[in-house]
Amino acid sequence: MDFTPHVFPLQLSRFRRLFHRHAESGFSEFWTTAFLARSLSEAGCAVKVGEEAICREARMGVPDEAVQAARLAAAREQGADPAWLERMDGLTGLVADIRPDLPLLTVLRFDIDAVDVEESASREHLPAREGFRSLNSGVCHACGHDGHAAIGLGVALELLRIKDSLRHNVRLIFEPAEEGLRGAAAMVEAGAVDGAKYFFAAHIGVNARRTGELVCGTEGFLASTKFDAEFFGRAAHAGAEPHEGRNSLLAAAGAVLNLHAIPRHGKGDTRIAVGRMEGGSGRNVIPAYAKLVCETRGSSTEVNDWMFEQAKRVIEHSAAMYGQDCRITLMGGGGTAVSDRAMCDIVRQSAEGIAYFKPELMKDMGQGFGADDACAFLEAVQKQGGMGAYAQLGSLLPAGHHSPDFDFDESLLGPSVELFCRVALALDARG
Amino acid sequence: MDFTPHVFPLQLSRFRRLFHRHAESGFSEFWTTAFLARSLSEAGCAVKVGEEAICREARMGVPDEAVQAARLAAAREQGADPAWLERMDGLTGLVADIRPDLPLLTVLRFDIDAVDVEESASREHLPAREGFRSLNSGVCHACGHDGHAAIGLGVALELLRIKDSLRHNVRLIFEPAEEGLRGAAAMVEAGAVDGAKYFFAAHIGVNARRTGELVCGTEGFLASTKFDAEFFGRAAHAGAEPHEGRNSLLAAAGAVLNLHAIPRHGKGDTRIAVGRMEGGSGRNVIPAYAKLVCETRGSSTEVNDWMFEQAKRVIEHSAAMYGQDCRITLMGGGGTAVSDRAMCDIVRQSAEGIAYFKPELMKDMGQGFGADDACAFLEAVQKQGGMGAYAQLGSLLPAGHHSPDFDFDESLLGPSVELFCRVALALDARG
Amino acid sequence: MDFTPHVFPLQLSRFRRLFHRHAESGFSEFWTTAFLARSLSEAGCAVKVGEEAICREARMGVPDEAVQAARLAAAREQGADPAWLERMDGLTGLVADIRPDLPLLTVLRFDIDAVDVEESASREHLPAREGFRSLNSGVCHACGHDGHAAIGLGVALELLRIKDSLRHNVRLIFEPAEEGLRGAAAMVEAGAVDGAKYFFAAHIGVNARRTGELVCGTEGFLASTKFDAEFFGRAAHAGAEPHEGRNSLLAAAGAVLNLHAIPRHGKGDTRIAVGRMEGGSGRNVIPAYAKLVCETRGSSTEVNDWMFEQAKRVIEHSAAMYGQDCRITLMGGGGTAVSDRAMCDIVRQSAEGIAYFKPELMKDMGQGFGADDACAFLEAVQKQGGMGAYAQLGSLLPAGHHSPDFDFDESLLGPSVELFCRVALALDARG
Amino acid sequence: MDFTPHVFPLQLSRFRRLFHRHAESGFSEFWTTAFLARSLSEAGCAVKVGEEAICREARMGVPDEAVQAARLAAAREQGADPAWLERMDGLTGLVADIRPDLPLLTVLRFDIDAVDVEESASREHLPAREGFRSLNSGVCHACGHDGHAAIGLGVALELLRIKDSLRHNVRLIFEPAEEGLRGAAAMVEAGAVDGAKYFFAAHIGVNARRTGELVCGTEGFLASTKFDAEFFGRAAHAGAEPHEGRNSLLAAAGAVLNLHAIPRHGKGDTRIAVGRMEGGSGRNVIPAYAKLVCETRGSSTEVNDWMFEQAKRVIEHSAAMYGQDCRITLMGGGGTAVSDRAMCDIVRQSAEGIAYFKPELMKDMGQGFGADDACAFLEAVQKQGGMGAYAQLGSLLPAGHHSPDFDFDESLLGPSVELFCRVALALDARG
Repeated sequence: MDFTPHVFPLQLSRFRRLFHRHAESGFSEFWTTAFLARSLSEAGCAVKVGEEAICREARMGVPDEAVQAARLAAAREQGADPAWLERMDGLTGLVADIRPDLPLLTVLRFDIDAVDVEESASREHLPAREGFRSLNSGVCHACGHDGHAAIGLGVALELLRIKDSLRHNVRLIFEPAEEGLRGAAAMVEAGAVDGAKYFFAAHIGVNARRTGELVCGTEGFLASTKFDAEFFGRAAHAGAEPHEGRNSLLAAAGAVLNLHAIPRHGKGDTRIAVGRMEGGSGRNVIPAYAKLVCETRGSSTEVNDWMFEQAKRVIEHSAAMYGQDCRITLMGGGGTAVSDRAMCDIVRQSAEGIAYFKPELMKDMGQGFGADDACAFLEAVQKQGGMGAYAQLGSLLPAGHHSPDFDFDESLLGPSVELFCRVALALDARG
Repeated sequence: MDFTPHVFPLQLSRFRRLFHRHAESGFSEFWTTAFLARSLSEAGCAVKVGEEAICREARMGVPDEAVQAARLAAAREQGADPAWLERMDGLTGLVADIRPDLPLLTVLRFDIDAVDVEESASREHLPAREGFRSLNSGVCHACGHDGHAAIGLGVALELLRIKDSLRHNVRLIFEPAEEGLRGAAAMVEAGAVDGAKYFFAAHIGVNARRTGELVCGTEGFLASTKFDAEFFGRAAHAGAEPHEGRNSLLAAAGAVLNLHAIPRHGKGDTRIAVGRMEGGSGRNVIPAYAKLVCETRGSSTEVNDWMFEQAKRVIEHSAAMYGQDCRITLMGGGGTAVSDRAMCDIVRQSAEGIAYFKPELMKDMGQGFGADDACAFLEAVQKQGGMGAYAQLGSLLPAGHHSPDFDFDESLLGPSVELFCRVALALDARG
Repeated sequence: MDFTPHVFPLQLSRFRRLFHRHAESGFSEFWTTAFLARSLSEAGCAVKVGEEAICREARMGVPDEAVQAARLAAAREQGADPAWLERMDGLTGLVADIRPDLPLLTVLRFDIDAVDVEESASREHLPAREGFRSLNSGVCHACGHDGHAAIGLGVALELLRIKDSLRHNVRLIFEPAEEGLRGAAAMVEAGAVDGAKYFFAAHIGVNARRTGELVCGTEGFLASTKFDAEFFGRAAHAGAEPHEGRNSLLAAAGAVLNLHAIPRHGKGDTRIAVGRMEGGSGRNVIPAYAKLVCETRGSSTEVNDWMFEQAKRVIEHSAAMYGQDCRITLMGGGGTAVSDRAMCDIVRQSAEGIAYFKPELMKDMGQGFGADDACAFLEAVQKQGGMGAYAQLGSLLPAGHHSPDFDFDESLLGPSVELFCRVALALDARG
Repeated sequence: MDFTPHVFPLQLSRFRRLFHRHAESGFSEFWTTAFLARSLSEAGCAVKVGEEAICREARMGVPDEAVQAARLAAAREQGADPAWLERMDGLTGLVADIRPDLPLLTVLRFDIDAVDVEESASREHLPAREGFRSLNSGVCHACGHDGHAAIGLGVALELLRIKDSLRHNVRLIFEPAEEGLRGAAAMVEAGAVDGAKYFFAAHIGVNARRTGELVCGTEGFLASTKFDAEFFGRAAHAGAEPHEGRNSLLAAAGAVLNLHAIPRHGKGDTRIAVGRMEGGSGRNVIPAYAKLVCETRGSSTEVNDWMFEQAKRVIEHSAAMYGQDCRITLMGGGGTAVSDRAMCDIVRQSAEGIAYFKPELMKDMGQGFGADDACAFLEAVQKQGGMGAYAQLGSLLPAGHHSPDFDFDESLLGPSVELFCRVALALDARG
């Protein structure tokens, strides 16, 4: 395999910082999608957006209309291309084909959404120090998807450059709303991996936290269910008639404690998180409403389902204990999928020619960290007889994923682009 | 005492509905203050607003600048008089003197703020049915202060009409931010009751819930402390590294439960309320911040102080239990003050000539419901040797105070205006 | 009224210390009842024990058979009269008539049970220092009923001495299981106050905490419901299969917190207590059982009923939240009863001739502290057209009621005997 | 290896049922130890008990003196040999050498304690149906140690029969208090494995739950810390002065909830259990004392230490939140130890000649379930250069370990004796 990258590392860093600065929450990646669409289209890619890329109804956990409208307006103010915004028609994410004229063989996935966390403003934090801290308050690329998007753009530019040598189509999926495991199912539904034989995706960091490290495939993802819980109580004057109220905050607070107290499971790992809570109104009014934003995880679908059953019971009886109704709404979720050994071999062989990845730091199979929506794509490809892998790209991390101080070493961008290209070429040769 | 009201009840109802429709939260009563200032000024009152009416620094629990700016903008959009808005200089509340040329004898207090509760949109709810439901979402006149403001405006118009017969000045105070016990101290600080000998205020409903009922004075107010509690934790990926987080929502939820579990007190009534809670960010991020909006109450200052001490301990150790810091910020508060029997007699005698108030439903002294910031004015007047009373104006109530369905019977507006006028005249005669 | 006491104060102190040393829990007052029965009988009283004194089936919250057997054995070992034990037939409490040949006019009540609290062994604590600390571990006269029993015995001896001068029968009731409000109903059921016109009882301390103080009557008792809650879960290995368990301790712990978090009531005082909790078995076994020993109180029957309803809901949903059943068992309870003013006058007049009680420290009516089972007797007498009062006998207290260091000033024993006698004589004269 | 067992399976079943019937809690195995000592001694074994077998001071979590005295008395009543009881001097557990005259080569461990759980009385439960249900209430062989003890006794009898053919000493350790990981350290301290080169132990069931299954070695034990937590509050009258109390039950209940809410750990499995809780005294007394019986576990010492740190913080601040002190007492604990592959091979080869163990159900290495105190012995042997394994003996189980209905298939007793003997002989041959 003969491949030399042409995209300058500096260019990749510039892309990454642009994405970082325009961090956008899941299903609100308006600026990001428009920027990618325009760049890819101008470079000669066949780009699909809107309902061609993603099934509108199959999306779960889409923000309120008012929120979406405000974010779309912000994207517009920040210079998003109006023509692409219009074609997107309120939908984010895109599909880019390098050779749409040839049969589809390989799908590469890059996720593009940010995390709902306020970015660090500390001088210790490179994005703050070098001026590319998130423009959007409360949203931050704290999981490295800015890097993924930049790598994807780089990969497209490289492959377009050599597209005449390809024997099959290579598709790049830029997935919205990976956080919350919400985007993949809706893209699969729209046909994004139909007919594909190979799937490859990668994540910066995870358990690869040394420069030059490479984990070629991943197992041990946790199945997950994302859901919101709402409590409907009754307001009353907190001084005069506290007994007339049905306190939703008290019910929700009890639920938070008892959700975390769901027992560990003897058959595998579990997780429970209440990521956000809000409720009540005035200081001296018994709170009549509260909302929890939650997720369960489990090392198998069975274990995760058990967690979700427990969680529902806790929530329902926390509400009933305070004489009120509740509503549980599914907001996303996904299963587990194990990388194929044969694919891991191809990844390893592809990496061996790249100086950045050190043989002594390469590993065939590693542990995931929770969940990645890539599983939904991989599973779909495996179901139609194909195979795939999810790699972990090693980087020193100054802080953990989802922390306000998360950052990564940009020197991995160039080698990562090269890795994706080499994998794609190897697969193209293999057929 | 010879007094016949001239203001038409229909006019009072119109005022009330205007105020109701423009419900504004404490210290954000921009439209309301500007409307009152303009109306009173045009009718011939000497009106003070801004720092002449209220001490800027002495206000506690003022909303954020951004919130205030948005509310001021909304008031402007809703037609508030720009000239008065400018004179108010960001401050709400006003002081109106009927005879500023004469020595001050009597202070009448009317509170004007609404409650942070979303108003009912049900057809059962008169304001919704008749089109004067609150324009401002999440804010509602659920405590009858719209009625108080309308009564105050009516009283001013009546007294201005007969002002030549007065031997002393009568002052009307339109108090902002009564909810949370935040406005009075700042107005007292600005001199609002300096030199006054008599104080009178009244509240619709409370424990007077029959048409024609009148409670002439009140005791049994609860002392109260208003405060916010913030928790400062650490974010982490909820799937990958839950152990690296310091979960602020969990700490705050534990605090909510344990605050409510503070024991009853053997020496008097107590209350504890967490009126609002919010915290966390993304669904799969361990929450790094949470905030509680709280108040304690007690039937004496000693009992309330004990409650607040317990609350502080609960909050501090809930935070420490989850390895994090917390901050408790005082936001308001007040003591108790008992109406004077002599003043209650004057109120009763004044009411006896008014057909609406039925002798068999009159009561000298009743129980309050929690707290009213009128106590701060009354206490200040009592300290300078004066006396006062806080009456309860009977009305059937379809729902309790602070409930989204709160409403009252507008037929009490006219008789209430007459009562205030007769009390003022009786005091003016007494000197 | 001409009455001079003959029983030496030293003798009363000796009685009191005997009762104190043989502190016995409710319905287990075997030693105490046998001692009283023998002493009164030998002095010439007509004594009823067993089913003549108390209705076996109407007793609530009777300890387990095994516990009762052990306590009966302990009483025997401590020298209780075997003949009287036999006549008691497992029942405690007694009724003593001074003049059984005459119609019943007046009932005097003395309660005799101790509190389930481990007595202080500190040198500061008089009973420990002077060697009459409770012989029975975990049970202690921490509420002064040892004093009441001693006063009752003294009153009987005095009245027997002058019995020929009486025109009506005077009855002394020695009530078991006053704590928990369990004994009175079962004695009323057995006819203990049938036909009586007057009722008088008194308690040491309560809100009379100065030497020489006397509160002649009491109002403001809290209605109360006593109940046990049990949780039935499922055991499992805590390491291997925690998810197979249904954790009763977790359910019960959640209930404890949420029971205390039941809101205050706008219409009156409330109390909630979980006095004891136990559950679980081995350290590494998921607990399959837990039990809570609880009570609610309220300033009216309505308010107490509301509390109990909330408590039931909390318990039921705490159990259901952890997938288990629960059982709530009623163990006792009582209402409120207000002393009659006319009776208070008689008490006050009777006390006026006794040097110990200082006129400036006398009060007609005081506040109770929670509940006293005397209410059940008083209510029964009031229902048949009679009247009564519940007095509070002033004493300095080194520690609060039910505290391990509770004690009282024995100098009040003599004057209290005299007060009871004078009240009985005044009523006898009045007829 | 030529070995034919001579002990009849019926005899093993008889032993097992005797042990089952005399189930005794950890460090109280008086009857069991005396029975073993006498049987082994009479058969010709060199038996050590008392301080020769176990270091008195190194035991953790020994029951109270009163409890121990009662259990010793019960053992005596149930016919335990008085002479051996005397030699044991209050200590349980024993060490039996087959050839004390030869150098020690191999240690076999059998644990003998029962679980603190009330045994099922259901007709479905074999021990209940066939009359060998536990004589001691609240204690039950719900973890199969009755089988282990019977197997150990059988092994000793077989090895004694062929002892002349042995070239080294084989030692059988009968360990008390395995539950809670309390016995092994104290026996290691007394020198029980000094000089040994090989260690072998086995457990009925665990993850081997099919008849004929055999797991030759085990990894994945969880490190564990056992501890008690006590809360020291202040009593008060629950009706009169609830505010004077410092409620220990409320503090402990909060701790229970928050202990279970300690987050999952990203680096491995964790467990938290509160196996027992008790506190409070009378129903209407604010509880002044409460106690929790707890354990943490983690898949590595690091993870378990982290759990214990969190647990301490939760307990300390739960106490402080309610204004009281607490005390945390270490009661036991242990690390993890992995079986040696070479030893597993010997176990597998030894089993191959035994019909009961089916080759298709044999597995080299399995997952443990929580913790086994065998790790402490194994670790000690490994430290002195030796090796060992911990096998799992397959049986159908009608209910999980520690459940009241736990039982196993007695047909595994004979083959298990044979397995231990063959392993010992193979090691003796290997040297």
